[in-house]
Amino acid sequence: MGKTLIFGHKSPDTDTICSALVYANLKNKLGLDAEPARLGEVNKETQFALDYFGVDAPQFIEKVADDVERVILVDHNEFQQSVDNIKDVRIAEVIDHHRVSNFETKEPLYFRAEPVGCTATILNKLYKENGVEVEKDMAGLLLSAIISDSLLLKSPTCTQEDVDAAHELAKKADVDLEKYGLEMLQAGADLSDKSPAE
Amino acid sequence: MGKTLIFGHKSPDTDTICSALVYANLKNKLGLDAEPARLGEVNKETQFALDYFGVDAPQFIEKVADDVERVILVDHNEFQQSVDNIKDVRIAEVIDHHRVSNFETKEPLYFRAEPVGCTATILNKLYKENGVEVEKDMAGLLLSAIISDSLLLKSPTCTQEDVDAAHELAKKADVDLEKYGLEMLQAGADLSDKSPAE
Ligand SMILES: [Mn+2]
Ligand SMILES: [Mn+2]
Ligand SMILES: [Mn+2]
Ligand SMILES: [Mn+2]
Repeated sequence: MGKTLIFGHKSPDTDTICSALVYANLKNKLGLDAEPARLGEVNKETQFALDYFGVDAPQFIEKVADDVERVILVDHNEFQQSVDNIKDVRIAEVIDHHRVSNFETKEPLYFRAEPVGCTATILNKLYKENGVEVEKDMAGLLLSAIISDSLLLKSPTCTQEDVDAAHELAKKADVDLEKYGLEMLQAGADLSDKSPAE
Repeated sequence: MGKTLIFGHKSPDTDTICSALVYANLKNKLGLDAEPARLGEVNKETQFALDYFGVDAPQFIEKVADDVERVILVDHNEFQQSVDNIKDVRIAEVIDHHRVSNFETKEPLYFRAEPVGCTATILNKLYKENGVEVEKDMAGLLLSAIISDSLLLKSPTCTQEDVDAAHELAKKADVDLEKYGLEMLQAGADLSDKSPAE
């Protein structure tokens, strides 16, 4: 099987970037040649999370290259939020937590949407279903995505599943959920050009 | 939570009828008020399976009634294959193995599509994921659906997952896979008006 590219939506948020990175990690562990990508700039909140857990941002792509055999969409399904040439590529999977709209395929695919607050919560389940342990840095990224989408478990879209996953992942990532979460959200809210370390 | 209706596509086949019946059974065991329904006549093949395992056909509906709070689609997602007033109802879940097309929702939902040969194969996994045992009659219906969609495990859409599920379910249903499968397919191919018992 050729290369698989995994990416989230345009104007990426922390769930989109982290879910692409983490799902590529899971796919690699399952023996698939998968690479994470992004469709836009990494924002400050997301960069804080990447720096904290020592993970590089995924590659930026403007469109899916010709040598890519299949793509996996995370954290979105609507074509207008996706890569510009989405209609020309084979969509093998979608992992998402949004309504389904403006989406279609020519062939059957793995489509996993759940009405939870964050894609990362679904990915945490996929590790379990596949019997793969979530490593510390990946747990940190999944936790960061949940904190971001749920505004530290306070948004109305946050479900009990998100809350349970966040607590479980905080343990694996070895951070204090409240303390880390506030620092991360503050890093995103920081309008100055100072890096979190300054 | 109000009533949930579960149904497959128009011109129902064995997978559509059996998946509606079986998923309603699983939902009931999980404490949800769910009822199976059908959008057309039960064909002879399906009737053979229902008779064999002693299960009544689901209720026929022309449209979703006003007292139904939510619907679950099995074995289809395209609106033109679904109930006529599909755009007026809340779709809570989709369990399917076809391409996604002509489908949209206003809200997030549970959407589970997998590139396997039969909806029943996915339902067999859902029992496991929910820790519920598949009873003999329900195993028989799931098996019948797989035999039907895969033409006794011989169609090109049949995957290893379908094969494994079929063998596992034949054991639980206490039937010989080949023998039962041929009888069921023959009952469907019978163009006379004779019932299988004659
Ligand atoms: Mn997002
Ligand atoms: Mn998200
Ligand atoms: Mn069907
Ligand atoms: Mn089917």
